[in-house]
Amino acid sequence: MPEFMDVHHGMVGITAEALMEAHNADLAIQGEEGVDFKQAWADPVSGVVYCLSEAGSADAIQRIHERAGHPYDEIHPVPLRV
Amino acid sequence: MPEFMDVHHGMVGITAEALMEAHNADLAIQGEEGVDFKQAWADPVSGVVYCLSEAGSADAIQRIHERAGHPYDEIHPVPLRV
Repeated sequence: MPEFMDVHHGMVGITAEALMEAHNADLAIQGEEGVDFKQAWADPVSGVVYCLSEAGSADAIQRIHERAGHPYDEIHPVPLRV
Repeated sequence: MPEFMDVHHGMVGITAEALMEAHNADLAIQGEEGVDFKQAWADPVSGVVYCLSEAGSADAIQRIHERAGHPYDEIHPVPLRV
């Protein structure tokens, strides 16, 4: 299944607990869209969050992120990895 | 050691081989700046590459990336991870 990296902006001040809660909110419903959220990295100072997942499409990821309350601002498929 | 996510733009058409070569060029000299490049993900269509590393500073990462011929366009520390 294709991998995607999506990016959230504006999450200034995010804490480790809030990141975990947001991730868990995704995990709780990801199966309904066939998405597998793998990792996320956050910078509380700039408010940027990077989120790596496997999914059938970018739209499937967005549907889960929107329902969990944190739609992405940008996304790219990342078919190449080292 | 802090983790960073840096982003490269303009790498449209990058191949798996070119990504591996670029990564290996970083690995060959990363020790000189105390950087540990961990993973990279690329989208050949948009030309975006995400690069995850551990380093003492963003500048140390840039010095390696510049010497290897691919300076980053943006970078953020990512102290939080799930």
